[in-house]
Amino acid sequence: MKSTTTAQLQVNGDRLNQSITSLASIGQLANGGVKRIAYSQQDIEARNLVQHWMRKLKMQVKIDAAGNIIGRYPGKNINIPALATGSHIDTVPCGGHYDGAYGVLAGLEVVQVLLENQIRLDRSIEVIVFTDEEGSMIGSKSISGRTIQDPQYYRRPEGTDIQTCLARVGGNWENITQARRNNQDIAAFVELHVEQGPVLESMGKKIGVVKGIVGQRRFNITVKGSANHAGTTPMQMRCDALVAASQVVLAVNKIGNTPGQQVATVGKMEVLPNAANVVPGWVEMSLDIRDLSSLHINSLLEQLRTHLEEIAVATNTQIRLNPCLHNEPALAEPYIQRAIALSCENLELNYTYLPSRASHDAQELAQITDMGMIFVPSRMGVSHDASEYTSPELCTQGANVLLQTLIQLDLELSSKK
Amino acid sequence: MKSTTTAQLQVNGDRLNQSITSLASIGQLANGGVKRIAYSQQDIEARNLVQHWMRKLKMQVKIDAAGNIIGRYPGKNINIPALATGSHIDTVPCGGHYDGAYGVLAGLEVVQVLLENQIRLDRSIEVIVFTDEEGSMIGSKSISGRTIQDPQYYRRPEGTDIQTCLARVGGNWENITQARRNNQDIAAFVELHVEQGPVLESMGKKIGVVKGIVGQRRFNITVKGSANHAGTTPMQMRCDALVAASQVVLAVNKIGNTPGQQVATVGKMEVLPNAANVVPGWVEMSLDIRDLSSLHINSLLEQLRTHLEEIAVATNTQIRLNPCLHNEPALAEPYIQRAIALSCENLELNYTYLPSRASHDAQELAQITDMGMIFVPSRMGVSHDASEYTSPELCTQGANVLLQTLIQLDLELSSKK
Repeated sequence: MKSTTTAQLQVNGDRLNQSITSLASIGQLANGGVKRIAYSQQDIEARNLVQHWMRKLKMQVKIDAAGNIIGRYPGKNINIPALATGSHIDTVPCGGHYDGAYGVLAGLEVVQVLLENQIRLDRSIEVIVFTDEEGSMIGSKSISGRTIQDPQYYRRPEGTDIQTCLARVGGNWENITQARRNNQDIAAFVELHVEQGPVLESMGKKIGVVKGIVGQRRFNITVKGSANHAGTTPMQMRCDALVAASQVVLAVNKIGNTPGQQVATVGKMEVLPNAANVVPGWVEMSLDIRDLSSLHINSLLEQLRTHLEEIAVATNTQIRLNPCLHNEPALAEPYIQRAIALSCENLELNYTYLPSRASHDAQELAQITDMGMIFVPSRMGVSHDASEYTSPELCTQGANVLLQTLIQLDLELSSKK
Repeated sequence: MKSTTTAQLQVNGDRLNQSITSLASIGQLANGGVKRIAYSQQDIEARNLVQHWMRKLKMQVKIDAAGNIIGRYPGKNINIPALATGSHIDTVPCGGHYDGAYGVLAGLEVVQVLLENQIRLDRSIEVIVFTDEEGSMIGSKSISGRTIQDPQYYRRPEGTDIQTCLARVGGNWENITQARRNNQDIAAFVELHVEQGPVLESMGKKIGVVKGIVGQRRFNITVKGSANHAGTTPMQMRCDALVAASQVVLAVNKIGNTPGQQVATVGKMEVLPNAANVVPGWVEMSLDIRDLSSLHINSLLEQLRTHLEEIAVATNTQIRLNPCLHNEPALAEPYIQRAIALSCENLELNYTYLPSRASHDAQELAQITDMGMIFVPSRMGVSHDASEYTSPELCTQGANVLLQTLIQLDLELSSKK
């Protein structure tokens, strides 16, 4: 029985970890970190290596208009929607070895295991390398059809236009809309990624079953008081904007700490006139709030608004909340979460359900097809740094979960069909 | 009986207010404010005008090594310590008509009333114009003997050295120590000044009897937490320096609002890395605390230290309090306060006792002799601004209190002698 055979398949951990090390050598910095900014020479070199590896695995390789590399390992039935996995290989200016690269290379390892065991699933498997995840996310946004039409939006910080950037990696801005995919194309997308947070490590779990990618709302909060002499103005006659702002910070922290998995942060604050001998007259600060449920975010914001009104009255200040970013949550499909959990159980790996509070290409794929994500632990929760680390053993275990999840989804979707 | 006669003396309010307007025309700005920075052409012009007025009042005029203008209206007994009054005529870059100038001109008006009534007190009256009150306070500090020896300390922001500055106004840096005075010279010093705060106006009082000039302690507070991703770091795993700092601001505000007349202010705050998507890892802020009693300041600081320790534990941060300024309070002599209060009662002017929470030349004079201060209300508490205002009626009333206080002190001190 093939199902028995596939259930016993395991990735080659040494080979996987060797490929992670090989890819990390492209753009490696003196401190061990990796600089492989999208469209750079290092990015192009890494893209070429990945395509080379795909071809060695007899995958069909295609570059779409957004520069996404799409490697396809054909299934028994090439006329039904594929199963897709993948991630990105570009990095932040000093990134680590795992963020993005791990998901791409684990996808290739899955294909290699299938290939060397001469196994084809019912469905084709696509391994996708998304363009510029660390910047504009233009790769996955083009697949979901959510790019911005104005090419100026995508101009690089150093000034290169998007037409030039995409041409460098085999894409074509003029045809960007042709990169769009749909669920007749891709039945499901599963992304394997390092957590980039401390939750799994602190809980002692090997695998995270991602419930979804949180929605994010960002606001600019302004507090208007009255600047006054810090010596001659008695306490009871002050309208101290910083005293009010401090109460706002604590109110934000309080709603962040109510039951739930939300996070709420004031990360930025500017005080005016900002002098030791002047009662602050004006404070401007950021609010960032994230949760898997839009309803929950709205309810927390309602609570916060009530707090802010009370603070304004109590401190004799005016407080304004101005929205500046609004991303809806992207939920993982329950049947994909179950397939991941089942794979963990079969592999005897402990796991937990958790939200992803960082952005991923998967959030765009969720716009057009069923989405799931698998997390492996990040040491100390660190990412976007040379010290980013996930042990070879954990990397291998995560790739085995990806392999078994794709096999499981292939079975489930075929029986549904 | 002369005591009856002097008790009925009144200043000429029109003349006083006219002289305030005349002096304000020197350095007047388009917005009605005054720019008469110490040692500037405008300051020198104003100093010349004041000396001219002193000579018209038959006062002996002298410039000491610190450039202080000392006008003396001789008393019956020129061998006993004088009564001194005065203030400053330099301004901040956009000051008003009253800060400093009022006290000098009211002093001259007192002399003029005595002169035209052919009255001499037992003691000579000195009207002193102190050099550079708004900057280094070098004038009054030289009189108290508390100048800094290093001339570099007094270099002007635009680069002029103190030797040049003092030479411009008739002083001499080389002889600066000769400006020192003592209580064999000056029996008492009474400064009349606008409040520069909102207390008198808000209480509906015409006169403030100053209990002393508050001591001031200034600190730099640092809060060390851990900078982390504002998305991927769960609330309970954060060491948010801004959450801790906000609690510090509220703790400072709380000790400021305990019973007493202290003020306590966080005026300045810097957050690092100060980005909307990063949990703050470091906050630096100022603490300014002022009160008439050093013991009370120390006790409040002890309470605050306890709060800070609790906050550091609760927020998992490190909080440090680093001193950067320490000025002791300068108390007004009770007998001078009583003389001012008695003058108010005789003039049927309502009054209150209050601390001065801003600096004045009087705090230096308190180092060498008995000191008192009289405040008149500042409209809306505003000072150091073109909109600084005290009505002519209030200015006249304050000058009458100065006149009667000096007369009263002359009587009291003579009977003591």
